[in-house]
Amino acid sequence: MLRMTTMDILRSAKTAAPSLAAADTQTKNNALLAMADALVDATAEILKANEQDMEAAKGRISEVMLDRLCLTQSRIAGMADGIRQVAALADPVGAVQNRVERPNGMVIEKVLVPMGVVAIIYESRPNVTSDAAALALKSGNACVLRGGKEAFCSANAIVNAMQKGLVKAGLPKELVQLVQDTTRQSAQELMTAVGYVDLLIPRGGAGLIRACTENAKVPCIQTGTGICHIYVDKTADQEMALNILENAKTSRPSVCNAAEVCLVHREIAAEFLPKLKNRLVTQRQIHPVELRLDSIAAQIIPGTPAGENDFDTEFLDYILAVAVVEDVQQATAHIAKHSTGHSEAILTADMAAADYFTKTVDSAAVYVNCSTRFTDGGEFGLGCEMGISTQKLHARGPMGLEELCCYKYVIRGNGQVR
Amino acid sequence: MLRMTTMDILRSAKTAAPSLAAADTQTKNNALLAMADALVDATAEILKANEQDMEAAKGRISEVMLDRLCLTQSRIAGMADGIRQVAALADPVGAVQNRVERPNGMVIEKVLVPMGVVAIIYESRPNVTSDAAALALKSGNACVLRGGKEAFCSANAIVNAMQKGLVKAGLPKELVQLVQDTTRQSAQELMTAVGYVDLLIPRGGAGLIRACTENAKVPCIQTGTGICHIYVDKTADQEMALNILENAKTSRPSVCNAAEVCLVHREIAAEFLPKLKNRLVTQRQIHPVELRLDSIAAQIIPGTPAGENDFDTEFLDYILAVAVVEDVQQATAHIAKHSTGHSEAILTADMAAADYFTKTVDSAAVYVNCSTRFTDGGEFGLGCEMGISTQKLHARGPMGLEELCCYKYVIRGNGQVR
Repeated sequence: MLRMTTMDILRSAKTAAPSLAAADTQTKNNALLAMADALVDATAEILKANEQDMEAAKGRISEVMLDRLCLTQSRIAGMADGIRQVAALADPVGAVQNRVERPNGMVIEKVLVPMGVVAIIYESRPNVTSDAAALALKSGNACVLRGGKEAFCSANAIVNAMQKGLVKAGLPKELVQLVQDTTRQSAQELMTAVGYVDLLIPRGGAGLIRACTENAKVPCIQTGTGICHIYVDKTADQEMALNILENAKTSRPSVCNAAEVCLVHREIAAEFLPKLKNRLVTQRQIHPVELRLDSIAAQIIPGTPAGENDFDTEFLDYILAVAVVEDVQQATAHIAKHSTGHSEAILTADMAAADYFTKTVDSAAVYVNCSTRFTDGGEFGLGCEMGISTQKLHARGPMGLEELCCYKYVIRGNGQVR
Repeated sequence: MLRMTTMDILRSAKTAAPSLAAADTQTKNNALLAMADALVDATAEILKANEQDMEAAKGRISEVMLDRLCLTQSRIAGMADGIRQVAALADPVGAVQNRVERPNGMVIEKVLVPMGVVAIIYESRPNVTSDAAALALKSGNACVLRGGKEAFCSANAIVNAMQKGLVKAGLPKELVQLVQDTTRQSAQELMTAVGYVDLLIPRGGAGLIRACTENAKVPCIQTGTGICHIYVDKTADQEMALNILENAKTSRPSVCNAAEVCLVHREIAAEFLPKLKNRLVTQRQIHPVELRLDSIAAQIIPGTPAGENDFDTEFLDYILAVAVVEDVQQATAHIAKHSTGHSEAILTADMAAADYFTKTVDSAAVYVNCSTRFTDGGEFGLGCEMGISTQKLHARGPMGLEELCCYKYVIRGNGQVR
């Protein structure tokens, strides 16, 4: 069989999309459940394809990446459950966000509608394939998936299974498709397919995000990079601050909502920094945190002197940059200069400081007295997540089903003219 | 005095923006009222500057454009009143769009916040200068205006006056600035000033919009072009249809929400088209409409045969393309192929056809039994408008104050960790 080109795939997705946009909730849910069942039914094929990927990748990618790539029967069952959970979420399509009756009798409704065709460029985790497809489908969007080359065989087997489910439920298989070319060219084609891609979501490392931001001609949402700050104010409950900092730094350092920078108010630095060192370094048998200290902090506790880039680096590791600041104003100024606009927290007992911080910090999620690790679709109660937007246009923070939609105005009258 | 470069202007706007984002409603309203007064006080200077523009433009632009460029005492008073009306609108900033308390006690609020720096590229109407500045200011955004070269002296005088008002109200004059360079280079600089422009809005002709869509690296909203369709279904009240078509085509043909295409159901074509010709052509002493007919319509009434591009042209004139379609399905298929996603209408007594049309047509505004001319911020009850978005990301249709904002999540807790 000839492989379809990326443009063939996009054209067929665009043609199929309206049937999904018009589908009711029951039809979409039936399709999702059929996709989940089909995924489980195809376990043997998917595992075989995954073995091919694993064989090819061994020695070429890190152990951590190999583990992410590896599928098992229970991981596939987990992916199917993930799809079933999306089926259980409320359908955003058709929701009336606003309704006004005008003096002339016209009724204007602002209604949520699907974007159309959503393209997702991601890297090597095969489970993103089913997650992304389920979220796109539930929000009424056709999806075109472009995974990493390491996971191509796995993703292809997963998409084949999901297509069987779609067809069984009476929907066209073109609603969920995998780009067959994993070279840079296909990513470039998706970024520039004006009129065919209604929304492009890159999920992956900083390089991918930058490439999309610089080259995309289609509507694109920047996701991911998080240089998250935690500012410990002079009135903070210091025991709480230690708990939050340990959680935000060490519970899962590889994720974008992990803290990378701690700012401490000058007046409590001499008292708090030794406690911080004790909690994050001395007391931790496994994975002690490396503290990278600015010159003032370095006068108080031992640690690595912070280098030029340490306050502009997403470490994604057991490393925390630490600086001492004069006050909340200097803390927010530091954040304005160094943040990626993801998540920042203030720990304080002073409501005025908290208010100033939440008003001034221009990030997707601004926390008072809790961990930055909560920036997540599930934790926010969205039930799911397609990624975390760090841009301001359209969606900001965790993107759930509503953020995969746009709206239109539907205006009903009885002959009104202007 | 040395002229500031575009980058100087952007840097100073970015520096000034946070003071406005943090300003309360009263402060912003006082500034708007002071700007309106300052505009009236500067009437003599503005008229003098406008004379310079008019002198330079005479013979180089059309009479219609000259009229748009021309300012009078009463037009300046009207601009000031426009600013005062914006002061009277509700402040979107700080509005809580959603609030949830999570099981762990964290309270998550989704709060409207300004974008930051909004850049507007527009053409020669001087009144856009004050309109755009007022809307940006009320929504908490610094604005950088880049007008057309024909109106530069006028716009400069208007901005100087508004800056005096800002300063009088205690806000930095850098919140409203005019780019001093009216060559293509400055437009290019605005489109690519990543990190300095949070939102770019081009207002003008198709060429400007296309240049922005193709070149912008900063977040940009496509506005304007409207190839609006009106579909007359077989069950339509034909007298109402004639009223709506005459209104949508002739009440103001130069605007983007005017109708350009009429689609007529085959079963009523023989009856309706002669009435249409009578109403739009024969009965109109002034400005009779030129009908450009597809081959089926041309068998029923006389008119110009439609050329290859007539169903893809925004005439902005007393011209209407007319085609006969089989049914509502064929009408929506035609619209999907030829529409710019602005405004479309169905005229029908059949609720099923109306439902199909509103669900299927993928445009910013979809009408049932009223004129497309209502797509407008004022008519929609937004009180104002920065332009009409024809894209799906972020804003669709008339953009009011809320559409000049983004949101952030503010999360308050008491020590929650994950």
